[in-house]
Amino acid sequence: MNKRFIFYLLGCVLCFEAAFLILPWIVSLVYGESEGWVYLACVVIYGLIGGSIALNKPKNTVFYAKDGFVATALSWILLSVAGAIPLCWCGDIPSYVDALFETISGFTTTGASILTNVEALSYTSLFWRSFTHWVGGMGVLVFILAIMPLAGGYNMHLMKAESPGMQVGKLVPRIRSTAMILYGIYLGMTVALIVVLLMADMPLFDALTLSFGTAGTGGFGIKNDSIASYTMLQQGIITVGMILFGVNFNAYYFILARKFKQAFKIEEVRAYFLIIALAIFLITLNTSGMYATMFEAFHHASFQVGTIITTTGYATVDFNQWPEFSKVILVALMMVGACAGSTGGGMKVSRILLYVKMSVKELRHLVHPRSINAVRLEGRAVDNAIIRTTSVYLASYVLIFFGSLLIISLDNFDFTTNFTAIAATINNIGPGLNVVGPTGNFSEFSVLSKFVMMFDMLAGRLELFPMLVLVSTIFQKRTGIWKGQSR
Amino acid sequence: MNKRFIFYLLGCVLCFEAAFLILPWIVSLVYGESEGWVYLACVVIYGLIGGSIALNKPKNTVFYAKDGFVATALSWILLSVAGAIPLCWCGDIPSYVDALFETISGFTTTGASILTNVEALSYTSLFWRSFTHWVGGMGVLVFILAIMPLAGGYNMHLMKAESPGMQVGKLVPRIRSTAMILYGIYLGMTVALIVVLLMADMPLFDALTLSFGTAGTGGFGIKNDSIASYTMLQQGIITVGMILFGVNFNAYYFILARKFKQAFKIEEVRAYFLIIALAIFLITLNTSGMYATMFEAFHHASFQVGTIITTTGYATVDFNQWPEFSKVILVALMMVGACAGSTGGGMKVSRILLYVKMSVKELRHLVHPRSINAVRLEGRAVDNAIIRTTSVYLASYVLIFFGSLLIISLDNFDFTTNFTAIAATINNIGPGLNVVGPTGNFSEFSVLSKFVMMFDMLAGRLELFPMLVLVSTIFQKRTGIWKGQSR
Repeated sequence: MNKRFIFYLLGCVLCFEAAFLILPWIVSLVYGESEGWVYLACVVIYGLIGGSIALNKPKNTVFYAKDGFVATALSWILLSVAGAIPLCWCGDIPSYVDALFETISGFTTTGASILTNVEALSYTSLFWRSFTHWVGGMGVLVFILAIMPLAGGYNMHLMKAESPGMQVGKLVPRIRSTAMILYGIYLGMTVALIVVLLMADMPLFDALTLSFGTAGTGGFGIKNDSIASYTMLQQGIITVGMILFGVNFNAYYFILARKFKQAFKIEEVRAYFLIIALAIFLITLNTSGMYATMFEAFHHASFQVGTIITTTGYATVDFNQWPEFSKVILVALMMVGACAGSTGGGMKVSRILLYVKMSVKELRHLVHPRSINAVRLEGRAVDNAIIRTTSVYLASYVLIFFGSLLIISLDNFDFTTNFTAIAATINNIGPGLNVVGPTGNFSEFSVLSKFVMMFDMLAGRLELFPMLVLVSTIFQKRTGIWKGQSR
Repeated sequence: MNKRFIFYLLGCVLCFEAAFLILPWIVSLVYGESEGWVYLACVVIYGLIGGSIALNKPKNTVFYAKDGFVATALSWILLSVAGAIPLCWCGDIPSYVDALFETISGFTTTGASILTNVEALSYTSLFWRSFTHWVGGMGVLVFILAIMPLAGGYNMHLMKAESPGMQVGKLVPRIRSTAMILYGIYLGMTVALIVVLLMADMPLFDALTLSFGTAGTGGFGIKNDSIASYTMLQQGIITVGMILFGVNFNAYYFILARKFKQAFKIEEVRAYFLIIALAIFLITLNTSGMYATMFEAFHHASFQVGTIITTTGYATVDFNQWPEFSKVILVALMMVGACAGSTGGGMKVSRILLYVKMSVKELRHLVHPRSINAVRLEGRAVDNAIIRTTSVYLASYVLIFFGSLLIISLDNFDFTTNFTAIAATINNIGPGLNVVGPTGNFSEFSVLSKFVMMFDMLAGRLELFPMLVLVSTIFQKRTGIWKGQSR
């Protein structure tokens, strides 16, 4: 393992975090809040530590897939551990464990909160909380790749470990250019969303923070009732925004490159919109009795479907009060998640597509034993290695899910709360049902449960393997069992 | 498809059902119940219809895997449809849909009941209900294979489709001998259990019916409080019985053949006992505060762990009242299920072992990319085709699970009820939590939900593929879409 390079990379991460923290400090100047000095102190400290590490660039820049996984997992942990310090230090979230939970929830774009009263926070901290969503949405390492000239062709390992999806494609031959294009689209769309929200009479601070949460499909609001108190127009804009940020960014690249046909032919994107349309239709019918007009039911159904499938986690209504049928649709959408290559979480539509196609193929093989049909996705036969990894992903997902469920059930909340709390954190959504429903929060869980859910949020955002590789590397170091097994 | 042969096989199934129905008629003579005449009428009618079909044995006995799946699915549906008629006709279960639910629940050894008052049933019907467990436990086609000289080497397809497990091994070269050995062990162990229960002062009728439910890992009791009112000794005997019937029968074959070493080396059986021991230990600790002595906690923990992991479904206590931690352990055990090659349901311990091993292998591959380790189970490298089928099994399982959950949620019961109702039926357990908990039942669900759960019970018992192949065959016939897709 190239430890020196990983150490160097962590230094870079700390430098970038210092740069990010300048923004909330500027906010504190605007609002005249004293919390800003804490943020400035962090900027200086992180900048000095990170800078002194990053100045010593190691000569050996060769690193392998394993190093990529470990570096990514450690980067995200460092990012969160350091990002939580100002929230705790300035007194907005007195408990460091809670601040860490909130920050991991932010960077992983989960949006699960331990705050019972969001509105009590300073503007500075509110801004930082929402900004973590924006950074986490596209990924900090992709950001570093876009900006810094990291030598060597090994950077693909970092991009693979951080970006969601089964097959991370390079849009253009050079990684750095791919990263720049992705962040370019991301930045452009975010700015567009801010402008549209401002045009719909939203105050600037709200437009900024909510756009960060929408773009990163995060879900931290700045009001206790999440998005409920905004106008229907503003809610509608956010609905469209969330759904658009859940689309595979390849589609936007094709559109920019004027390859419209290719953009509209992406199977995953079509399935994504089909699922959204179907879910909105069913929920609108199912909840129509609860709202004055059919349009209102449609409006709230669209918002909640958009927020859950993209794993954003905003809410305009307490869907805990909805009929069970609608709730089960939402729980199913929690698992499905958004498109690969988007900022959303969950299992990803392409994986679900692959599972369905694998099942259909196997069934057809049973009915016509002589037929040998490869599983095809996006018009191409899917590589066996990907089918294997995707199967293992599902198995690992189920195992981690039940393991986590078991540990947090020690807190003795009801089954629905526990089940949806894990679903909401491992899929990076935010709210679940019952205690952790749209009007509830995660504050009542024990410290142990909070750490389990922090692990789940990181594992979910990084698609399980980086965190599992990190854990197994530590495990191997300490016991040597791993090596013993691999004889 | 060899339709003539399938038709012939269905005739045989009906004949055997007529023979089985003689037993409850004898019970009615002992207790002087008039319900017996209905059962006798069914014996005559089924015997005549089945016999006239079975007399015309087709000359072409060639049939393929697909025919095996379709024949198995149809056999089980016919068995249930015909088996439900006397229950409804004699007036014990007036609604035919409910009688069908109860019979499918019986044959699939689920043990989920729509009865609010079991004790109101006649002894005749109680006996029949429990006897369906015994028939369903080892499988009716395996029974037919054991008794009738079906020509050809194609019978393996039937045995494969009906027997649980990823790899159905022939114990001896001839299928018929394998089936006879299996039923021999099954019958011998059931008789032994009856004798031991009689020695523990249990009345004969109770000993018979409870032994059928234990041997088939079914779970229909003959009292409203299930097993709660029996003595601790009797409960203890049933605990041991359930756990032993959940063991892979290969182990017993090895013991009979005096290959003790081989019997104790079966990886699945060792994992099975390890899981049981761990679950009992954790639940005993977790519930110790609820019972007078540690031994009582251990006694109830053992019974409930045994009943759930083997998917039997008896209950001595209302585990709905247990702490959430214990409940989540039970829900996890519901999914795990018993050993392959036993009478129990669920995913089977060997599949879970395979999922864990696949995940560990993939992880090791990520850490050491050059290592190529095959997944090994029972000391042998697992065939790729099996890994693929097992992966598809998990994907299909999750898809069927969520599809079913969605439909039954229309009844608007709470999430825990819906989730555990599907878990309890697809894994052939019986009771779930809340409304369908040990003290509840399935009577309040709508007809639609009951049909969904009937499908799930059959799909679960036959390990998904036979029912899916049947559905897709019907679908193909009616629309031709299937063929169009397979170009």
